[in-house]
Amino acid sequence: MKIRVYYEDTDAGGVVYHSQYLNFCERARSEIFFKNGLSPHQENEFFVVKNIQADFIKSAKFADILDIKTTIIERKKASLRLHQTVTSQDNQLLFAMDVQVVYLKNGKPSKIPEKFQSLFSLNN
Amino acid sequence: MKIRVYYEDTDAGGVVYHSQYLNFCERARSEIFFKNGLSPHQENEFFVVKNIQADFIKSAKFADILDIKTTIIERKKASLRLHQTVTSQDNQLLFAMDVQVVYLKNGKPSKIPEKFQSLFSLNN
Amino acid sequence: MKIRVYYEDTDAGGVVYHSQYLNFCERARSEIFFKNGLSPHQENEFFVVKNIQADFIKSAKFADILDIKTTIIERKKASLRLHQTVTSQDNQLLFAMDVQVVYLKNGKPSKIPEKFQSLFSLNN
Amino acid sequence: MKIRVYYEDTDAGGVVYHSQYLNFCERARSEIFFKNGLSPHQENEFFVVKNIQADFIKSAKFADILDIKTTIIERKKASLRLHQTVTSQDNQLLFAMDVQVVYLKNGKPSKIPEKFQSLFSLNN
Repeated sequence: MKIRVYYEDTDAGGVVYHSQYLNFCERARSEIFFKNGLSPHQENEFFVVKNIQADFIKSAKFADILDIKTTIIERKKASLRLHQTVTSQDNQLLFAMDVQVVYLKNGKPSKIPEKFQSLFSLNN
Repeated sequence: MKIRVYYEDTDAGGVVYHSQYLNFCERARSEIFFKNGLSPHQENEFFVVKNIQADFIKSAKFADILDIKTTIIERKKASLRLHQTVTSQDNQLLFAMDVQVVYLKNGKPSKIPEKFQSLFSLNN
Repeated sequence: MKIRVYYEDTDAGGVVYHSQYLNFCERARSEIFFKNGLSPHQENEFFVVKNIQADFIKSAKFADILDIKTTIIERKKASLRLHQTVTSQDNQLLFAMDVQVVYLKNGKPSKIPEKFQSLFSLNN
Repeated sequence: MKIRVYYEDTDAGGVVYHSQYLNFCERARSEIFFKNGLSPHQENEFFVVKNIQADFIKSAKFADILDIKTTIIERKKASLRLHQTVTSQDNQLLFAMDVQVVYLKNGKPSKIPEKFQSLFSLNN
């Protein structure tokens, strides 16, 4: 998934505000559902972020086009652990994180529906 | 209401990102409710912004402390028109807007509850 | 320009947070430059928003794909007035605004460079 | 440091958007400087986030008042490792993270100035 950096993503340091990389990664996770005709959110069922370990390696800046890659590391009944990277147009690694997402149904961890099982079997 | 400018509010131009002033004003509107022990949002009832006319006069920057003032211009059955200003610590006018907010109940414009009537009778 | 609505764009009302439409419009203005191989920002020269008049007509929600259209209303030496609309995938008008942007060079209103003159001559 | 949750901080799940906790923590780090009459940012010198490990434990929602606490874990010449927690008004732990920040001068890791040494010696 390609994401353009706009003004709103930057801060007074002239580069992308640090927490914005988490947003970019969340967009990429959502797009995996969308491009398969699914939605990560319906009524009282959705994924929430449980844990992240993130490294901020280099900075992206205004007008950059970033590439977000998502791979699965671990799949459990109610949760997934993913590895996501943000790379610049000249192929530099800017950001990498491991993120654990849990599927909630009415606020409780719950089995990830069958229809989602195939989504995270391959690199996206 | 006083608001500090943090990194997240700024952009690569070194100043507060333009739409962030609308957020500051929305915080100030919410605080009018909170400081009276009320909430602007319950279940399916809340105010939405219908219209704004805004002037961006001078720029705020990182670490500034801003003062948000809210006055009522017009009160109708289901809507309010407010005037809000953002002023710097050295008393310069940075931003001014007229904003119309409409009270929605189950998605429909609806009479503003009695308990809110007194909130906007005075400058806050 | 097409923009997808992600979680980060929504609020607890279940719809896109009001000031986010201004961000979408700013992205669309930036893309007009990018797709012509130009940038709206270099060093100490860039456009700033001076004035907006905006109507919030209907709400966009998570997963929607929005269409942003930009047309020029008025061109002056150092400023432009643009009309921008946000439309849903089923062709409903959600948001419309007139926005005046001023070209700043070292903090002062300044003649818009020749290279930008052609960008806003047509609907984009 | 106390932080109120506003609409802008929430998402369509009805709770605070996950990356927003990082912003809250960044505000708290900035306030440690401000309340000592210092700024974490001057010209080409500032702290950047290098690494985070974060646990999202419970969700905050609109109108909540959160308490952010910051303690130092490790101090090196050019970097600090901090532990930050976000707690609700009823004293529930919502979020905890370890964050490493590096001091940059003209884009390079650089010795943290003397005047900042005392800031992180105690719990704040």
